[in-house]
Amino acid sequence: MKKRVVLAYSGGLDTSVIVRWLTDKGFEVITYTADVGQGEELDEIEEKAKASGAVEAIIDDIKEEFAREYCMPLMRSGALYEGRYTLLSALSRPLISKKLVELAHRYDAHYVAHGSTGKGNDQVRFESSVWALDPDIEVLAPVRDWEFKSREEEIEYALKHGIPVKATKEKPYSYDRNLWGVAIEAGPLEDIWAEPPEDAFEITVNPENAPDSPEYLEIQFEKGVPVAINGKRYDQLWKLIWDLNEIAGKHGVGRIDMVENRLVGIKSREVYESPAGIILIKAYDEIESLVLDRFTYHYKLTHISQPYADLVYNGLWFSKLREALDAFTSEIAQLVNGTVRFKLYKGNAQIVGRKSPNGLYFETLATYSPEDEFDHKAGEMFTKIWGLPLKVFAKANKR
Amino acid sequence: MKKRVVLAYSGGLDTSVIVRWLTDKGFEVITYTADVGQGEELDEIEEKAKASGAVEAIIDDIKEEFAREYCMPLMRSGALYEGRYTLLSALSRPLISKKLVELAHRYDAHYVAHGSTGKGNDQVRFESSVWALDPDIEVLAPVRDWEFKSREEEIEYALKHGIPVKATKEKPYSYDRNLWGVAIEAGPLEDIWAEPPEDAFEITVNPENAPDSPEYLEIQFEKGVPVAINGKRYDQLWKLIWDLNEIAGKHGVGRIDMVENRLVGIKSREVYESPAGIILIKAYDEIESLVLDRFTYHYKLTHISQPYADLVYNGLWFSKLREALDAFTSEIAQLVNGTVRFKLYKGNAQIVGRKSPNGLYFETLATYSPEDEFDHKAGEMFTKIWGLPLKVFAKANKR
Amino acid sequence: MKKRVVLAYSGGLDTSVIVRWLTDKGFEVITYTADVGQGEELDEIEEKAKASGAVEAIIDDIKEEFAREYCMPLMRSGALYEGRYTLLSALSRPLISKKLVELAHRYDAHYVAHGSTGKGNDQVRFESSVWALDPDIEVLAPVRDWEFKSREEEIEYALKHGIPVKATKEKPYSYDRNLWGVAIEAGPLEDIWAEPPEDAFEITVNPENAPDSPEYLEIQFEKGVPVAINGKRYDQLWKLIWDLNEIAGKHGVGRIDMVENRLVGIKSREVYESPAGIILIKAYDEIESLVLDRFTYHYKLTHISQPYADLVYNGLWFSKLREALDAFTSEIAQLVNGTVRFKLYKGNAQIVGRKSPNGLYFETLATYSPEDEFDHKAGEMFTKIWGLPLKVFAKANKR
Amino acid sequence: MKKRVVLAYSGGLDTSVIVRWLTDKGFEVITYTADVGQGEELDEIEEKAKASGAVEAIIDDIKEEFAREYCMPLMRSGALYEGRYTLLSALSRPLISKKLVELAHRYDAHYVAHGSTGKGNDQVRFESSVWALDPDIEVLAPVRDWEFKSREEEIEYALKHGIPVKATKEKPYSYDRNLWGVAIEAGPLEDIWAEPPEDAFEITVNPENAPDSPEYLEIQFEKGVPVAINGKRYDQLWKLIWDLNEIAGKHGVGRIDMVENRLVGIKSREVYESPAGIILIKAYDEIESLVLDRFTYHYKLTHISQPYADLVYNGLWFSKLREALDAFTSEIAQLVNGTVRFKLYKGNAQIVGRKSPNGLYFETLATYSPEDEFDHKAGEMFTKIWGLPLKVFAKANKR
Repeated sequence: MKKRVVLAYSGGLDTSVIVRWLTDKGFEVITYTADVGQGEELDEIEEKAKASGAVEAIIDDIKEEFAREYCMPLMRSGALYEGRYTLLSALSRPLISKKLVELAHRYDAHYVAHGSTGKGNDQVRFESSVWALDPDIEVLAPVRDWEFKSREEEIEYALKHGIPVKATKEKPYSYDRNLWGVAIEAGPLEDIWAEPPEDAFEITVNPENAPDSPEYLEIQFEKGVPVAINGKRYDQLWKLIWDLNEIAGKHGVGRIDMVENRLVGIKSREVYESPAGIILIKAYDEIESLVLDRFTYHYKLTHISQPYADLVYNGLWFSKLREALDAFTSEIAQLVNGTVRFKLYKGNAQIVGRKSPNGLYFETLATYSPEDEFDHKAGEMFTKIWGLPLKVFAKANKR
Repeated sequence: MKKRVVLAYSGGLDTSVIVRWLTDKGFEVITYTADVGQGEELDEIEEKAKASGAVEAIIDDIKEEFAREYCMPLMRSGALYEGRYTLLSALSRPLISKKLVELAHRYDAHYVAHGSTGKGNDQVRFESSVWALDPDIEVLAPVRDWEFKSREEEIEYALKHGIPVKATKEKPYSYDRNLWGVAIEAGPLEDIWAEPPEDAFEITVNPENAPDSPEYLEIQFEKGVPVAINGKRYDQLWKLIWDLNEIAGKHGVGRIDMVENRLVGIKSREVYESPAGIILIKAYDEIESLVLDRFTYHYKLTHISQPYADLVYNGLWFSKLREALDAFTSEIAQLVNGTVRFKLYKGNAQIVGRKSPNGLYFETLATYSPEDEFDHKAGEMFTKIWGLPLKVFAKANKR
Repeated sequence: MKKRVVLAYSGGLDTSVIVRWLTDKGFEVITYTADVGQGEELDEIEEKAKASGAVEAIIDDIKEEFAREYCMPLMRSGALYEGRYTLLSALSRPLISKKLVELAHRYDAHYVAHGSTGKGNDQVRFESSVWALDPDIEVLAPVRDWEFKSREEEIEYALKHGIPVKATKEKPYSYDRNLWGVAIEAGPLEDIWAEPPEDAFEITVNPENAPDSPEYLEIQFEKGVPVAINGKRYDQLWKLIWDLNEIAGKHGVGRIDMVENRLVGIKSREVYESPAGIILIKAYDEIESLVLDRFTYHYKLTHISQPYADLVYNGLWFSKLREALDAFTSEIAQLVNGTVRFKLYKGNAQIVGRKSPNGLYFETLATYSPEDEFDHKAGEMFTKIWGLPLKVFAKANKR
Repeated sequence: MKKRVVLAYSGGLDTSVIVRWLTDKGFEVITYTADVGQGEELDEIEEKAKASGAVEAIIDDIKEEFAREYCMPLMRSGALYEGRYTLLSALSRPLISKKLVELAHRYDAHYVAHGSTGKGNDQVRFESSVWALDPDIEVLAPVRDWEFKSREEEIEYALKHGIPVKATKEKPYSYDRNLWGVAIEAGPLEDIWAEPPEDAFEITVNPENAPDSPEYLEIQFEKGVPVAINGKRYDQLWKLIWDLNEIAGKHGVGRIDMVENRLVGIKSREVYESPAGIILIKAYDEIESLVLDRFTYHYKLTHISQPYADLVYNGLWFSKLREALDAFTSEIAQLVNGTVRFKLYKGNAQIVGRKSPNGLYFETLATYSPEDEFDHKAGEMFTKIWGLPLKVFAKANKR
């Protein structure tokens, strides 16, 4: 019986060559292509896959699942990898892996394959995810193993096997895009002292070319879920995120430029565009700052966001840890109701207002006006007790 | 013998009334006014203090000490209270407290006094700091105790005692300003859904009115200390910070608008301007991201910045914990060498380049070009081991 | 209409005097006495309460609720305050507070009252808990407010009002006991250099007097709940805990002696006996170490146990933070299946064996025998990548 | 020119075979054997090494350096891996690596070698440490690479090359021992449900065979360093640790039995004896609990001990992170003065007393006697403010 493999297929050169290469090695290749909001027409994918040798080509719209089950938990966690990155690529890998495993089961395939290299994070995310879902499936990553020593050799192989190679001059960048944003690397970006060239960006305008007038943006949450933009409600979450990318991207909001630590021990320069990601994470955090008491909010900031970011970045989505952290943030999400008001202008997304039906801000407690209800005497005594450990310390060390 | 008290004196109405009120209560009042970079002429302070009844009025320029011993450790820690606030007021209180205690010792005074109310954070910062430095000094906070029930009664008392009351219509805001920025509260800001009125701001321009062309800004660090702006070296650190406020403020950079958790258990809306603070914290962090290995950098993000922010906010500057955290960040500061390049534009301060003589970014390891020196086979095997715990987990739970 | 108050009533002198004192002040006093496993007969409580002036006396067996809803979440969190204390008193306060609030609602009482002093932790736990459940109820703590300047004056008042005062010579200690253990303080324990006298202990024998032969103890968990001791299943959780106290206490297991930090800023010497608490926390942790992957287990150790302990100690049981942390630990609890084997001997509870149907220990991976299935080559390559950050660091700093 | 290698040499079969095997491969082998307190005579090491083919054999007593520079920082950090293990093996590897690198420099050798396998933690510790100290040195681990498929083949090779093979029946365990304790694995210990056989232990007696009378033990610290046992001062720190192992080991103290997570992704059952390690870590922590204010002590418990343990376990000793954490703990060490009193009995080491010249325990603040100086009114008001966030939360969510 033939060995069967389900391949994560983008339709690009690498994965098309993989189809052929695996077929040559005796595999029956089933390709899987997901619409995760990358904004590309997937019409010709089936044809391409089959031209490359696939026995079957599956196209799947998983935007809503991606939005609900992946983008939302991330937003709730407040995760920004190294305080900056919205984890967009790291988010899509586990979902695609899950689909690969499901198809492997359906098609009785013992193998899945992906097109990642040996030095990136994505190999880790694919393989950890697959193993977490089915430890008996084997994962192939032909790019790590094959004999081609250069891009040229790979193209030669492609041409020889009738795989279509785009003749058009490509940009010198490598891209990964989905609903949560765009990841850009390679080429001129490898010089970390140089400003990213304007042609690198895909979904955000240069702030200098953004509209000259600010635009206000209101996002409304119900039980932790964004439900409306500027009062317009959405049935489909992916559409809300999509529109948010447009609205904020138009004002140049959401560009990230960083030198990041890959899991495999090296630093790389990465540029991202994540307008919706940045906006939603900030907005969610703003409501939290309003509806959570100090103890809960500070715990979240110190103990949840950073570890969650590391976990997702490091390919551990399908771990019990992620499920347990999601249980934590889901508990809190019940309180996240209300609206955040942004002012978008020339690359800025400044929060200028916020409100919640269950907000903990009471003007009567906060005010310096005569309506003040706060007990100042209690404040004085609190101060006395709060400072006591330092006083006792001073006393003891003065002795 | 008369009871003697050293009072933190701003020259404003409240502290002037305190001078008189304490004198009436039988105290000899010595006033202390520090120049912490609030940008005000202090020429008339002595006269004012004495007119209010002070037996002695001390004026002290402590800008450089404030910059070196307070702003720098904070910058090194990466602290932003609740992820937003540069802690400007919280930073100056301990230094002023230290000066009060030193003067109390010099003048043989058993008391120090401040003008904070019973519901703010500053009372805690003053009192904890004083007690930590000398547990035997008593702290007075007349505003918490006196008999005036309204602003009007206080003014009446002032007029009766010949204390000058500014006739000019004041802004409806309360301000605290130093080198590290401006804190603004009260008045229209108490409505958390309303955008801060433009007249509230003191040192930043509205991004909409900022220059229409971006400006590049390069900050150079040596062993953790910023030493030059755009290639121009500074002998005085306070001057560097001062100029940075101007440069960045001119582009509308550094505005913060938040609902924050006070230590005394209430939420309040606070607006800040901290151009230099924001720029320096971001720049320092950027160099760290370049010169620190992943383990060290992630530890700092998870375990240092947030706790440090809480500690400073909560008035625990003179605790052993702050000294120990400073020992941690000082150790790392030795590595913080290099230059960060910002693009300032309409409220944005986007980092667009960074370099360091001891940076850990190696293009030969990061590149996707043929110069790649990374061992892809090792990456593959690493992946295998990294994902093993999830694989074992899946195996065990499948049994 | 008369003011009505529900009082947490122990039947001891203090709370009996409170009944009378509140009655004198014009309150109608309803007493509430809970059986939380303190091992005392509560038969005469009603009579005592009424003799002191109560209009109604309620006795309530809440041992099972205490075991399930309070002891279990704590066990799951692994919380030990300051690494030592099983939080027994801190656990019972919120449950009693909840009952007080429920009764206040039922009896239409606007007040609840407790017998704690102004320097302990319990006042904070009672009052925070009550306010969290109903912010409109007022909490009275007569011991903080009344006029008695000494124990003698209090006794005099009691005798004058016919409140029974035990004539027997009491131990010089103060006790609080429930299912989760015994808290002992005051008297000779205030000398922190002196060993606790043997007469201080209530439910553990001196290890020197414990049996000369070790005893094995097996505790079995199902989905995070202890269900059997030495193979004997329990329907009632409180009974399992009760028996565990007996079994382990007999061997001198569970004594804790520490100088702890109270929330109110002072250090106090506390001695505890918590045989079941210690055993269950250790056992639960042991199963976790077996069934959780490294990422999840380490997160729990670093981020959950200590914050949870602080939260419970500091009276924040009815916070969203506790609920969210419980959601985290409940998620993990599903995996906590299996048996832990202890050897009890002369104060020791040494774990000597553990097993779980979903344990992650695979002898074939761990063994050094020829059955070894681990890929050593992968280990070598993993090492190469793992150490890369340090290598790159060395390279960069050697330049 | 011949390739030269410095080998970490124990004198056992594996490393002796490595000497010969490397020599066969064309290396000049210099052996390095350190006395880290393993309690073995090293007299015959030189002879053995040379008999196996070494060109030079170096013996080095580094016990004091190990005690001061490795055991002490660990003790100060409070690190216990997974809450249990004193990290004894993990501590010695970096020091030995440092010596190997120093010798490589002195002897102009480009290689160092060790005898660890591909599935343990030690390979990671050796290689990370060497690379951190000199990224240009290559590390050899022949055991991972050589051709022997079984113990028998290895012995056959040894016999053929005249390498002495001990004929005596060996214990079925694998050992690693130094001043900080003994690590035991393999053989019957691989059954995690079975109690460790008594013959596995080396430096602790079975509690059942320990003396029938308790013994008191007092350890005195000065500025974070243990200086005396029972009043007897030590010049040499290693000797103090050595004696502590004897004193505590005699009472059966210091046995650890756990299923631990290796860095390479598997769980293994490990048994340790670490009497001095356990005693010193507990004693140090006890003084800290007495001399540190709550804020500092809780930070240490939450943020230092666990990350430090992971770092050491994971071979990151020579990282900036370790240096920065040591800077933190060194700052605190200045306060660690005083004496801890233990009662050793049948496997127990119960702390029964503690004192410090700069302790923060004040009986006048803690007492319930009439000497009480604590301000109970302040306690009441503190309670009011402390609970305010929960009250406000309740209010907001009741609306």
